Amino acid sequence: MKKVGIVMGSDSDLPVAQKCAEQLKKLGIPFEVHVYSAHRTPLEAAAFARGAAENGFGVLIGIAGMAAHLAGALAAGTLLPVIGIPCGGGALGGVDALLSTVQMPTGIPVATVAIGGGANAAFLSAEILALTDKALAERLAKAREEAAKTVLEKDKRIHEEFEVQ
Amino acid sequence: MKKVGIVMGSDSDLPVAQKCAEQLKKLGIPFEVHVYSAHRTPLEAAAFARGAAENGFGVLIGIAGMAAHLAGALAAGTLLPVIGIPCGGGALGGVDALLSTVQMPTGIPVATVAIGGGANAAFLSAEILALTDKALAERLAKAREEAAKTVLEKDKRIHEEFEVQ
Amino acid sequence: MKKVGIVMGSDSDLPVAQKCAEQLKKLGIPFEVHVYSAHRTPLEAAAFARGAAENGFGVLIGIAGMAAHLAGALAAGTLLPVIGIPCGGGALGGVDALLSTVQMPTGIPVATVAIGGGANAAFLSAEILALTDKALAERLAKAREEAAKTVLEKDKRIHEEFEVQ
Amino acid sequence: MKKVGIVMGSDSDLPVAQKCAEQLKKLGIPFEVHVYSAHRTPLEAAAFARGAAENGFGVLIGIAGMAAHLAGALAAGTLLPVIGIPCGGGALGGVDALLSTVQMPTGIPVATVAIGGGANAAFLSAEILALTDKALAERLAKAREEAAKTVLEKDKRIHEEFEVQ
Amino acid sequence: MKKVGIVMGSDSDLPVAQKCAEQLKKLGIPFEVHVYSAHRTPLEAAAFARGAAENGFGVLIGIAGMAAHLAGALAAGTLLPVIGIPCGGGALGGVDALLSTVQMPTGIPVATVAIGGGANAAFLSAEILALTDKALAERLAKAREEAAKTVLEKDKRIHEEFEVQ
Amino acid sequence: MKKVGIVMGSDSDLPVAQKCAEQLKKLGIPFEVHVYSAHRTPLEAAAFARGAAENGFGVLIGIAGMAAHLAGALAAGTLLPVIGIPCGGGALGGVDALLSTVQMPTGIPVATVAIGGGANAAFLSAEILALTDKALAERLAKAREEAAKTVLEKDKRIHEEFEVQ
Amino acid sequence: MKKVGIVMGSDSDLPVAQKCAEQLKKLGIPFEVHVYSAHRTPLEAAAFARGAAENGFGVLIGIAGMAAHLAGALAAGTLLPVIGIPCGGGALGGVDALLSTVQMPTGIPVATVAIGGGANAAFLSAEILALTDKALAERLAKAREEAAKTVLEKDKRIHEEFEVQ
Amino acid sequence: MKKVGIVMGSDSDLPVAQKCAEQLKKLGIPFEVHVYSAHRTPLEAAAFARGAAENGFGVLIGIAGMAAHLAGALAAGTLLPVIGIPCGGGALGGVDALLSTVQMPTGIPVATVAIGGGANAAFLSAEILALTDKALAERLAKAREEAAKTVLEKDKRIHEEFEVQ
Repeated sequence: MKKVGIVMGSDSDLPVAQKCAEQLKKLGIPFEVHVYSAHRTPLEAAAFARGAAENGFGVLIGIAGMAAHLAGALAAGTLLPVIGIPCGGGALGGVDALLSTVQMPTGIPVATVAIGGGANAAFLSAEILALTDKALAERLAKAREEAAKTVLEKDKRIHEEFEVQ
Repeated sequence: MKKVGIVMGSDSDLPVAQKCAEQLKKLGIPFEVHVYSAHRTPLEAAAFARGAAENGFGVLIGIAGMAAHLAGALAAGTLLPVIGIPCGGGALGGVDALLSTVQMPTGIPVATVAIGGGANAAFLSAEILALTDKALAERLAKAREEAAKTVLEKDKRIHEEFEVQ
Repeated sequence: MKKVGIVMGSDSDLPVAQKCAEQLKKLGIPFEVHVYSAHRTPLEAAAFARGAAENGFGVLIGIAGMAAHLAGALAAGTLLPVIGIPCGGGALGGVDALLSTVQMPTGIPVATVAIGGGANAAFLSAEILALTDKALAERLAKAREEAAKTVLEKDKRIHEEFEVQ
Repeated sequence: MKKVGIVMGSDSDLPVAQKCAEQLKKLGIPFEVHVYSAHRTPLEAAAFARGAAENGFGVLIGIAGMAAHLAGALAAGTLLPVIGIPCGGGALGGVDALLSTVQMPTGIPVATVAIGGGANAAFLSAEILALTDKALAERLAKAREEAAKTVLEKDKRIHEEFEVQ
Repeated sequence: MKKVGIVMGSDSDLPVAQKCAEQLKKLGIPFEVHVYSAHRTPLEAAAFARGAAENGFGVLIGIAGMAAHLAGALAAGTLLPVIGIPCGGGALGGVDALLSTVQMPTGIPVATVAIGGGANAAFLSAEILALTDKALAERLAKAREEAAKTVLEKDKRIHEEFEVQ
Repeated sequence: MKKVGIVMGSDSDLPVAQKCAEQLKKLGIPFEVHVYSAHRTPLEAAAFARGAAENGFGVLIGIAGMAAHLAGALAAGTLLPVIGIPCGGGALGGVDALLSTVQMPTGIPVATVAIGGGANAAFLSAEILALTDKALAERLAKAREEAAKTVLEKDKRIHEEFEVQ
Repeated sequence: MKKVGIVMGSDSDLPVAQKCAEQLKKLGIPFEVHVYSAHRTPLEAAAFARGAAENGFGVLIGIAGMAAHLAGALAAGTLLPVIGIPCGGGALGGVDALLSTVQMPTGIPVATVAIGGGANAAFLSAEILALTDKALAERLAKAREEAAKTVLEKDKRIHEEFEVQ
Repeated sequence: MKKVGIVMGSDSDLPVAQKCAEQLKKLGIPFEVHVYSAHRTPLEAAAFARGAAENGFGVLIGIAGMAAHLAGALAAGTLLPVIGIPCGGGALGGVDALLSTVQMPTGIPVATVAIGGGANAAFLSAEILALTDKALAERLAKAREEAAKTVLEKDKRIHEEFEVQ
């Protein structure tokens, strides 16, 4: 199976990368984690993107905050789908990172997920890779069923708690 | 090849859908266009999403403005990757649609592109489908090369115009 | 008397639901509490909305954060008035949920109250149900009188404290 | 049937009031239209609100832009449900009016609809009044069915247009 | 000397009122403090504003958060200058209160100061009253001189600390 | 009577200054109009502010857009009340000018009115000067009465137009 | 004298580049104009930045809209000061470009000027180059004097026009 | 070597000034630190700016929050390049300071860095001064290399940690 490449722009983004990695692991998707800054190590970031397809990656995920150029910089170097996770935590709560990630010019899209959305980048990767991987598609379907079941169990429990009051 | 399903929430989103369709056509990707409102025709929108995989779709694109729930509603009904295009034009310039599209909860991601980014939704679809379609990957690579060439030709022309002045 | 249906999209919205439930109880309005996610359990959320009128509900309240589609999804399935409470707490302080809740398209309104406005959703429900329920109208009038009295007592006390200084 | 009271803060809000009135007329709901400014005619606005219930109104709608206090001022004077329509058009596109309308304190809710949402205020009024008016409920159901039918007709036409291309 | 009337919409605004009162006391300006809600006690708030001029007030200060209508409601009832202090602390950091306070319609201005600007409302009151009160003008001038002196002392100390390093 | 000093930062702000001047004229308040930029002519702006009190001014009005420092720069040079009018029209619709004008530090308040609020700066000036000028107070009261009358006439006309329909 | 390198991300930014070029010409500063997209021609943009110092450039200016990565991408490739001009015109009025340009990570600053601030990027370049170029410093001083003179002439004319009225 | 002048508007900005000073020290650039408020000590701030060039400064840095006029006020008094650091921490997270700093009018640019970007103001100063100081250019190059090395070391460590899991 093709790997997912998780790239964070700074190790301050590690908690978001971990949520992403944890979810990929649960879904049985191989992945690598890297720290490349679009600005402090532009050559390494670009080289990683340019070599990603032939190094066995199927999806890249860029995680960055503030003027979050990382996902866009990866997208500029590859034809693989690139997912961007804007990070919050700074002065503006992540709206800077969101706009820097999502408002890409024609031809170089970044598939942007929610601010801090580490797990959802994993799910989106899975949806993409599952297009040609039935076993993964089944694991994904199961994860979604379980999420629904969890909601319905909470519904039952909370509904009853309020009835009792 | 799997088809792309373009769904707009209202026919006022038609210009964005057209940019998307036009780009898919250039890239040789089959597609269908639909108008389903997440709120006025929720059953039809949900049915379309639930049947999409077995009806030969590989990627769905939801186009909507204001409280743009369409892409999220499609994503709730399918395991296919769903791309969301937030539309501007209203009182808030599309920031309402952007936040309504991108800030999805864990488990149900929407791959969000720029406000009004019809062409980029097509390119992102192509990147996803090209993972297992070499011919498409080549057409995509060529489109990107041509975009680069266009930039460099403009660079040459504009650079010279200013030199002459 | 018709019931109020409180639906939260996630149990992280429980504190807001509790403020709402507590106020309904004070006003003597019967209610039920549910957890249905517009995205993780779309069928259950839609089924609840479609059956609400004949199951004795008079008003539905949707509580959700981020890309808060829940109230809109309920509104798409019923002709009952639907109140939306956008929740804060996330990266953007609730402005995402506010815009996702209030900017609904023509024909499917959501009566939106303040970010985190659990108690006010209860008061708005009461105002709606009190249109044809004199006893409730009196309880509502009394609650408002007491709120005014509380303000005026605070006025008296604080006014005097500053006089004394 | 109880009347709907449409109050605009300034005659510059007339286009929004007209959309609202037109929709109420289609739904067969009696209404009155007024111009009262919360700031230039505070006594008249308050008197209108305080007398509304006994003058046969069932729902009030406040329409205002900028520091849009009108709906809140009406709500302070009545126990009837009050709907607020924030108006755009000014320097900030209506976000000022939206926040001034929706962020009401506990006990005095304003049921806020989308910026410029004249028709939706009419639909919300109808949903409220239809709780105890079966004929209105049927007209409302029919309006919604027709809106759905319109979407599906557009779907058919647009879908075919793209097929033909 | 004319008094300043400090009115807060809720006792949660007390810390801002205290900063204001403290500064007025330092400047030797008489004042009264009240709690009147524009929405929960609209009649009392309006009555206070309408009687303010003949009750010896020269300036009114309205302090409120969220849909901060209080200063505007006071301004609607008096020809005295009304200062508005928007309060933060809620989900949106005070931007809701700022826009609700400052964006007043023609004819009914509110002199808006910074979010949470309790002391500045006192200084602005002083500037207004000092127009015809030489002694106050001198106290105000002295306060400003002292503020400047404090800055320059800090400049000296901090400048030297960095020199020493 | 003391004069009002209208200062605009650029002649692009002239339309706002004209609305202000026109209203002052109607209210019978003497005024002078100047163009001083806080940044291009800082010395002249500061000199004007420092000399304003002894040159017969009672209130200063600063009109500026973008990083609107003018009102603050005037306030730094005088103890007279300074009113700030943030101007829109640029890329951000005036929110930049609003924040640059209103968020002043402790001790140097700027009485901020709505974006583009030329007339309201005149009314606020009038309220301030009317504190010790009975004739002006009467003219101001009359202006407000007429504004109210205009609203009520519009109410009558529009109310009837809708009745007739 | 060292040259200024003006780089725009797209020829849609040409009007801003022209304002910049025009001002540089007036100030007698040599410059080159280029079109390089950070995303469509990342290698060319990076190569230009890396070679800029030895190719005789002293300052680089990046002009871009939306997810405006260009100035940051140039800054990542050079130790020369890089000025960023965020461009408006899109759905969000340039706030996306502003945040994408200014919120750079530690070590790779971009000297950001106002949205659409083509002329100011030229003035900032001039201030930087004038540090070691007395003749340029004099031309710059003269430009500023003339700007001040223009303001004061406008002041005189407009002041008199209002006196006459 | 020319000095950098760090000016903060209030000693509450000291942490940002310290980050700046610390980085300048590491880069071997002489600097002075001052506290001058654009509003409380406008004459001293202006005098400092006007004398800066002949007192041996090459770059000025203005640090301020809220209606952050300081950098602009310095820029109005000198032809030296002025860097502005908008400070967060207040009610609006620094967006007020950012807009007040960056949106300067034509002719008086402020080179704005990220909210709270103390270190980056130092780096930008270094880039400017390094244009004619080879030794500084080398220290700057080395700092950047080390920053890159740190990223790559983190990459190695984190990459391996995830491999091991």
